[in-house]
Amino acid sequence: MAPKGFLAAGVHCGVKASGKFDLGLLVCPTGARAAAVFTTNKIVSAAVTICRRHVKSPRVTAVVVNSGNANACTGQLGLDNAITMCAETASHVASRAARGADCQARNVLIASTGIIGHQLPVGKIVSGISLASEKLSASPKAGLDFARAIMTTDTRPKQAVRRLEISGSKVTIAGAVKGAGMIAPNMATTLCFITTDAAISKPLLASALKTAMDGSFNRLTVDGHQSTNDTAIILASGLAGNRPIVSPRPLYDQFVDALSALCEDLAGQMALDAEGATRMFKVVVTGAATKADAAKACRAVADYPLVKCAIHGGDPNWGRIICAVGSVGVKLDPAKLSCKIGTITVFRNGAPAKFNVKQASKIISRPRHTITVNLGAGSVDDFCYGCDLSAEYVSINADYHT
Amino acid sequence: MAPKGFLAAGVHCGVKASGKFDLGLLVCPTGARAAAVFTTNKIVSAAVTICRRHVKSPRVTAVVVNSGNANACTGQLGLDNAITMCAETASHVASRAARGADCQARNVLIASTGIIGHQLPVGKIVSGISLASEKLSASPKAGLDFARAIMTTDTRPKQAVRRLEISGSKVTIAGAVKGAGMIAPNMATTLCFITTDAAISKPLLASALKTAMDGSFNRLTVDGHQSTNDTAIILASGLAGNRPIVSPRPLYDQFVDALSALCEDLAGQMALDAEGATRMFKVVVTGAATKADAAKACRAVADYPLVKCAIHGGDPNWGRIICAVGSVGVKLDPAKLSCKIGTITVFRNGAPAKFNVKQASKIISRPRHTITVNLGAGSVDDFCYGCDLSAEYVSINADYHT
Repeated sequence: MAPKGFLAAGVHCGVKASGKFDLGLLVCPTGARAAAVFTTNKIVSAAVTICRRHVKSPRVTAVVVNSGNANACTGQLGLDNAITMCAETASHVASRAARGADCQARNVLIASTGIIGHQLPVGKIVSGISLASEKLSASPKAGLDFARAIMTTDTRPKQAVRRLEISGSKVTIAGAVKGAGMIAPNMATTLCFITTDAAISKPLLASALKTAMDGSFNRLTVDGHQSTNDTAIILASGLAGNRPIVSPRPLYDQFVDALSALCEDLAGQMALDAEGATRMFKVVVTGAATKADAAKACRAVADYPLVKCAIHGGDPNWGRIICAVGSVGVKLDPAKLSCKIGTITVFRNGAPAKFNVKQASKIISRPRHTITVNLGAGSVDDFCYGCDLSAEYVSINADYHT
Repeated sequence: MAPKGFLAAGVHCGVKASGKFDLGLLVCPTGARAAAVFTTNKIVSAAVTICRRHVKSPRVTAVVVNSGNANACTGQLGLDNAITMCAETASHVASRAARGADCQARNVLIASTGIIGHQLPVGKIVSGISLASEKLSASPKAGLDFARAIMTTDTRPKQAVRRLEISGSKVTIAGAVKGAGMIAPNMATTLCFITTDAAISKPLLASALKTAMDGSFNRLTVDGHQSTNDTAIILASGLAGNRPIVSPRPLYDQFVDALSALCEDLAGQMALDAEGATRMFKVVVTGAATKADAAKACRAVADYPLVKCAIHGGDPNWGRIICAVGSVGVKLDPAKLSCKIGTITVFRNGAPAKFNVKQASKIISRPRHTITVNLGAGSVDDFCYGCDLSAEYVSINADYHT
């Protein structure tokens, strides 16, 4: 069961030469409260610029997304095209899905993903918006079509759903995400769209989204870089009938927990479908002097190409892990530094530990495993997620032509 | 002609299972002034720890190097083994090459490269030192053997030589380097050994080495990481007969220029022989607000896997270059941001420029080319070097087993 009050569609309109879906539409005919988080890249797509503006609207009626073209680095024409997308969507939605509703361009959110620096084929997109607005449906199939329409190098659509009860009412939260390359902590969202029927105030919705992102998407690194287009949007229709969430607790906490679980699920799917990735790993750093050091050390390991290659090869090469931690200038005690692969200690107090290499190799070859490093410099810890680096990552990104 | 006063050798002693050379020896029977720079990684090999100590000696008689084992993360036993290597070398050198010379362990410099976290097979290395000290020679073949003995995943030995005249005397500077993976700016040296017959004071020798490194090795990034073992050593025998270089100019400037040219040559060879690399590129950033911003932006482009993959594919995908620059938080003006591939402007004042894609693809497919980004935020510039990322990098590093 999808959250109440939403319609979705996905169509092919011709942005992608492959014939695959490339335009998605999400509509909340009654209007939804909306919140979003965006990339921290200083160069942002026209879609991000416009979406940042429109998300301030008290009510959002639709979200329009295209894949195959990022509409980034496209100058004034790119901005004009993004506004056209919103205006076209508003006019179709107002006339079909939300008859009589007041739907202006500013009530439409927008996202784009794909190649940077090419102007949008806006004629094709306008036809696609028309087509999609005719196909809008609340069926699971429509939700899946939407999830397909936002894909780029993803090999499969990624969706998740969570249900909870708030003040006796059944509340649903559903999400779709596209990932693949250019995923780094601090807004590692690529594109993520979440709908819920929970009744919740706009500021608390924004705060819940930020909290859930911080514990999930923002801890995932695929290639250490944020794109120009990263966007996560949540829409709340308020139709679940729950007592409105208007204060920080306890109803809010319930909602945040469910939303966080949903985001962790989506982030995990994203990591395992990262370009060429075959496994994901969690890096836990303990014994850091500061939170910043712990976070930096985690990320150094997860981003280090030699560690990523070793994991791809099923090689418990802990030397590369230690080397990565040492290279980023965090405080550590070489005489106390230790490392575990899964539960196996491979390096203890600055010296190699005897361990069963075959067993460690088995652990590091699992689709999900954990690497733990103790810096021996304090008592602060942190974690993040990474994935392996395969030859396929290179071919995907060397063959994806301008 | 090699610099006067040096003997070299390279042998196989059994550290590498492949039967390839794995132990190199450089000897200056009359004793040389020495200087060195090391990795800034907080975790350093036993060789680096010992070498840092020994390089303070007023006179150095020998340098012993092994490949195939990094002697890093090896605790107290690793330190003991490094000291044994120096002591054994000193005793062989004192009895054979430098009869009567006062050669103690502290007069021997040391470097190791290879896998991290395994104890050195010290018995094999001791035999190797004995074997190498019997083979010592001033012939070009001996220099080449030494250059081979320091290789790990390098596909070819890398040597360079520069000649100059100082105060009427012919001075020679020669160098050998090993590179491949784990190369990042700020001590991107992996292992580099330079000999010269110039007469020069120890402090000026150290200063010349630092200057030459800053303009060459320290600007090269292969995978954005420094190893635990990076070491560059220069030995000066003083036998060229030149008026000793004891003050900052003008003789010193002549020497620094030649040494810098030598280091640029070696760094270029290293980039083109980086693991799986097929081409190297220079990134020039102009229009930065500060030197730190310019350096950060350069490196962001050179380190960005998607840029490296695009270059591998011969794809002038400038969107990824702009994305990389935007992602590292440097000051830039999106409305003034511009980018050139070679001499072709591909992005001008925040908007795509029309350009000949085939021509740009041709440039980016050359073994050496330049990418220029103007941040539009000031007047400071900087540059660095990078290389492409190939599927071979991954297989080299996934198959290199613990």
